[in-house]
Amino acid sequence: MTVGVGVIGTGMIGQDHIRRITQVLSGGAVVAVADVDAARAGQVAAGLPAATVHPTGQDLVADGAVDAVLVASWGPAHEEHVLAAIVAGKPVFCEKPLAPTGEACLRIIEAEMASGRRLVQVGFMRRYDSGYLALKAALDNGEIGAPLMMHCAHRNPSVPPYGFTTELMISDSAVHEIDLVRWMFGEDIVGTNILKPRRSSKGGADLHDPLIVLLEMAGGVLVDVEVFVNATYGYDIRGEIVGERGTVALADAGGAVLKQDGARTGRVPADWRERFIRAYDVELQDWLKAVAAGTSTGPSSWDGYAATAAVESCLEALRTGSRTAVSLGERPDFYAKEQ
Amino acid sequence: MTVGVGVIGTGMIGQDHIRRITQVLSGGAVVAVADVDAARAGQVAAGLPAATVHPTGQDLVADGAVDAVLVASWGPAHEEHVLAAIVAGKPVFCEKPLAPTGEACLRIIEAEMASGRRLVQVGFMRRYDSGYLALKAALDNGEIGAPLMMHCAHRNPSVPPYGFTTELMISDSAVHEIDLVRWMFGEDIVGTNILKPRRSSKGGADLHDPLIVLLEMAGGVLVDVEVFVNATYGYDIRGEIVGERGTVALADAGGAVLKQDGARTGRVPADWRERFIRAYDVELQDWLKAVAAGTSTGPSSWDGYAATAAVESCLEALRTGSRTAVSLGERPDFYAKEQ
Amino acid sequence: MTVGVGVIGTGMIGQDHIRRITQVLSGGAVVAVADVDAARAGQVAAGLPAATVHPTGQDLVADGAVDAVLVASWGPAHEEHVLAAIVAGKPVFCEKPLAPTGEACLRIIEAEMASGRRLVQVGFMRRYDSGYLALKAALDNGEIGAPLMMHCAHRNPSVPPYGFTTELMISDSAVHEIDLVRWMFGEDIVGTNILKPRRSSKGGADLHDPLIVLLEMAGGVLVDVEVFVNATYGYDIRGEIVGERGTVALADAGGAVLKQDGARTGRVPADWRERFIRAYDVELQDWLKAVAAGTSTGPSSWDGYAATAAVESCLEALRTGSRTAVSLGERPDFYAKEQ
Amino acid sequence: MTVGVGVIGTGMIGQDHIRRITQVLSGGAVVAVADVDAARAGQVAAGLPAATVHPTGQDLVADGAVDAVLVASWGPAHEEHVLAAIVAGKPVFCEKPLAPTGEACLRIIEAEMASGRRLVQVGFMRRYDSGYLALKAALDNGEIGAPLMMHCAHRNPSVPPYGFTTELMISDSAVHEIDLVRWMFGEDIVGTNILKPRRSSKGGADLHDPLIVLLEMAGGVLVDVEVFVNATYGYDIRGEIVGERGTVALADAGGAVLKQDGARTGRVPADWRERFIRAYDVELQDWLKAVAAGTSTGPSSWDGYAATAAVESCLEALRTGSRTAVSLGERPDFYAKEQ
Repeated sequence: MTVGVGVIGTGMIGQDHIRRITQVLSGGAVVAVADVDAARAGQVAAGLPAATVHPTGQDLVADGAVDAVLVASWGPAHEEHVLAAIVAGKPVFCEKPLAPTGEACLRIIEAEMASGRRLVQVGFMRRYDSGYLALKAALDNGEIGAPLMMHCAHRNPSVPPYGFTTELMISDSAVHEIDLVRWMFGEDIVGTNILKPRRSSKGGADLHDPLIVLLEMAGGVLVDVEVFVNATYGYDIRGEIVGERGTVALADAGGAVLKQDGARTGRVPADWRERFIRAYDVELQDWLKAVAAGTSTGPSSWDGYAATAAVESCLEALRTGSRTAVSLGERPDFYAKEQ
Repeated sequence: MTVGVGVIGTGMIGQDHIRRITQVLSGGAVVAVADVDAARAGQVAAGLPAATVHPTGQDLVADGAVDAVLVASWGPAHEEHVLAAIVAGKPVFCEKPLAPTGEACLRIIEAEMASGRRLVQVGFMRRYDSGYLALKAALDNGEIGAPLMMHCAHRNPSVPPYGFTTELMISDSAVHEIDLVRWMFGEDIVGTNILKPRRSSKGGADLHDPLIVLLEMAGGVLVDVEVFVNATYGYDIRGEIVGERGTVALADAGGAVLKQDGARTGRVPADWRERFIRAYDVELQDWLKAVAAGTSTGPSSWDGYAATAAVESCLEALRTGSRTAVSLGERPDFYAKEQ
Repeated sequence: MTVGVGVIGTGMIGQDHIRRITQVLSGGAVVAVADVDAARAGQVAAGLPAATVHPTGQDLVADGAVDAVLVASWGPAHEEHVLAAIVAGKPVFCEKPLAPTGEACLRIIEAEMASGRRLVQVGFMRRYDSGYLALKAALDNGEIGAPLMMHCAHRNPSVPPYGFTTELMISDSAVHEIDLVRWMFGEDIVGTNILKPRRSSKGGADLHDPLIVLLEMAGGVLVDVEVFVNATYGYDIRGEIVGERGTVALADAGGAVLKQDGARTGRVPADWRERFIRAYDVELQDWLKAVAAGTSTGPSSWDGYAATAAVESCLEALRTGSRTAVSLGERPDFYAKEQ
Repeated sequence: MTVGVGVIGTGMIGQDHIRRITQVLSGGAVVAVADVDAARAGQVAAGLPAATVHPTGQDLVADGAVDAVLVASWGPAHEEHVLAAIVAGKPVFCEKPLAPTGEACLRIIEAEMASGRRLVQVGFMRRYDSGYLALKAALDNGEIGAPLMMHCAHRNPSVPPYGFTTELMISDSAVHEIDLVRWMFGEDIVGTNILKPRRSSKGGADLHDPLIVLLEMAGGVLVDVEVFVNATYGYDIRGEIVGERGTVALADAGGAVLKQDGARTGRVPADWRERFIRAYDVELQDWLKAVAAGTSTGPSSWDGYAATAAVESCLEALRTGSRTAVSLGERPDFYAKEQ
């Protein structure tokens, strides 16, 4: 079975998913696209074998050829597009964030529960990265004993000098680690705080770069995340879990080692594409298989809500300068871990 | 366009390529299978959406739904299946070796040239490995200057105690490095020799394991390949090119680093699947794209012939205990590098 | 010239320094010892070519054969022994801490200034470690640009189940990083705080292990130090400085890489001796040379005072649970950096 | 006890040992020097507390203040100086080679045996390198099973354009690996051969650089040594032993890892000093201790003879282009391993 996918939002990330479905993965075909910029949607469709252009996301969802919906519109529009897919009873893959506020996420959860079926997967692709999977396997196999801490670094070479705010360092960057640690440790974040190291002069005037984001897990594990979006030297993602009997950490990339001019040199990835392109491929292939099989295996609406709630807590900590609690309410059985 | 692929040979490697085309890659579908074991072919076809079972490879080639042929039969049968595809004017991907003797390879070359079109790709998947590609990029960019030597190691954890002979260490194992270095340095192998280190007691009584295979490139680069098929500890493939101004080597695998019990530990791949599965995926995806585009980009019949000729030279060196020349004759323009 | 050294305190660390001076280093000889346990002092002296046993540290200082004094008595006795050496005008090497309280350190500083000459070196040996020296060289050469953060980990395999308190994790363990960062960044610590991750069950009931110690440098650099004294897997000291244009980190130890049973394995040091024995050798050799040359090059009384003051601040932060300022007063010109 | 050392030969290596004894090590003092260049000997002595200048090595040996002799004269003079020390019954440390010909070495052996006491240590310092010691420990502990092969690389950044011949690549460079493998595997070299890769254009016109030196151990272990004396990028010494159940290899140097400009970079040593200075220190400290204790623990005259004999075999293989046997004759009990 080939899954007919309708893509709402044909910007950079939308186009990348279209390329993925069309040229890399098995079992899917892009049959419809929609974008607020109709011309762009038309251009994208022109490069595909057979894709209908729809004026709105709602129209796309209603298209009979669309078996499943991929939402890559901008964040504030996610809610309406995801809700439309839920109402139509169609599986929907929504790029992160599920929605920019906890309230919006809860409305999606309510609608999905009302539909009686898990339809939503949120695009947290790190769960599909082979490095993090190796960490999780070591942790789950008891190789390091009970976890106590995790040290993370999230370093981008640079961000645009205008428009990228300190808040985005949390909602756009640290959000990946926020979802990651919930999945890694199988428990929720109960408190957050922000530390401010010396500010790099490489960022814009209003950007407090880097930050250290502290995340307290329900069981006491303390996670520190260095978020540094103008690190200049490359895209460097690091993580080390410290347990009672050992530690496990992301290894440096493989590839080649060059010896030259007195140095032994390996490559640091240039950007998130180089570092995570495989994780995106695996993520979307898994989603296509789950859709074809009528199951749901990836990050759920509840995970999307929990991430947004933790982001809101971090933003509050950033404003107030003090530790802020995260309170999610109880997770409905509908979102129990095993599905 | 979806390429209809007919697969001749449904043993381990054939089934793996079928899985790849069906579940992993984009743009192909297995529409026909054939195997000397008709029952096995039937079982394999039963697991596919729509694949015809043919009694012989020739019948499969003749099937109108078959756009391109994948030959995964046993080595001695490759010649007849590849020739059948050439005669039918259909692109054919042939697992290594192209054929077990230089003469057989030359017959394929003759037929392909007579057909007027490059139709054959040989399954040397290392050319698609990201590690080797990084080495080649460093070399081609002049980062290490003119190449002088290459040190390789080809270590398997183990081979079956019976049936795996010293000769297979060359024709089955070292053949990968043989093709690799021709591609890496863009020149032919002109001489070979075999050194015999102390024999491991882990192999069968008739197996002289390990060997060191020496390959002399036309331009003087000397390649040494340790072939060790009962290395026990894992599947470990290594390569370092030494140039006038530096060296470049395959890095150890990434993944995770575990610290435990006084040690810092990374994983060695368990087998060739773990090490090279991505290279196989990229190789076959490239082939499907080339078939769809009507081009030919991978290792050619000439490459298959050159590899078999170098294997024959190594086997002669093994018998005689002395350096043996390799003489290919001149490469026809038909097989000029750029295609 | 051979420097005649009198050693006060012949416990573990004192004996180790005696072995070092006698069997490893050049230019020194242990000519006198003293210890509160006279029998132990006698035994130690018996193993030396010609060392007088003195009943008290003061007697030892007065011995005409003693050119310089090494204080390895327990912390609370340091003040009286160092003061005795200063009064006698003899150079003195004092194991850390210089004294357990800031007030005691200030009394030593006052006496040393009154003597008109820099006589005191404090035993912060990390400044002599080749790894940290490589970090400092990279930093001082501008290779990573302006420093913004430093991430450290200080992991011991274990501490005795009784007697080792949470406070000692700061005054005995983190004190090394406290001195280190002052030296590394050439500026003082102005604030501290303590974070409490989940507690390991491997430590004693009263030990909150691990901790994260936060140190704010005068220029804004934020240092986080994981102190984990029951890490079980080995003695692992890590440090990474993050700058505006890059990072520099302690490398893993060299030695040998073993490949065995599916793993690639390097050794983690078993204890501080294995990790830092060379730094201790270099430290004391430098001190002997400085004494012979009549100069003073190592960590000063002021450095000892600054470290103790930062430790006191951390202990206050541990008690109160909040950020605590460090205030040293102005550094006298007598202790200007260049000497 | 302080060992009074007389140093014959005050060139570069002689001066370095003098510095070592005087400023770095414990238990020795340079009390006499001699050199064919009397002026140089005088200058060197002037920088020492109390060293007599002797007109000849023989005079120096006769000096009553000389307890032990260090021979750092040029190779052809080693024999006469070592013999003089033996006749005088004084322990002697002789830089490699013991003597340039097997015959000369045998004369030393004869004299030493006639003296009734082991007096000679040859300066093969790699046996004292922590990296090789870690390899030997792994091997001797059975961690990799029975050894089958060893792969070595001996890379110098450069050699002088004139005067450094292809023969010196063996007698000056590979000689280190020659002694090393005899010690590592506890058995003799029984055959040698030389392979000639493509020649680097960086060396002088007469220099065939690099070479691959093959060494066959008595038990069948095959050692390949890449000798590359104009490797340009640094001083890089590598070694990997391959055994039946695993491998063990020299790790890259520790120090610091720099991340900058898209790369992760570690340092390659600049020269042999940086790489092996500690091994030289440990070697000579051990010798001083052995002299003081009246024992002999390091590489013996027999080891010096065996190395020279293997060098002669390699030079013959270089001339003839074919495998050459090494025949040492039987080792006298006088040189039994355990002393």
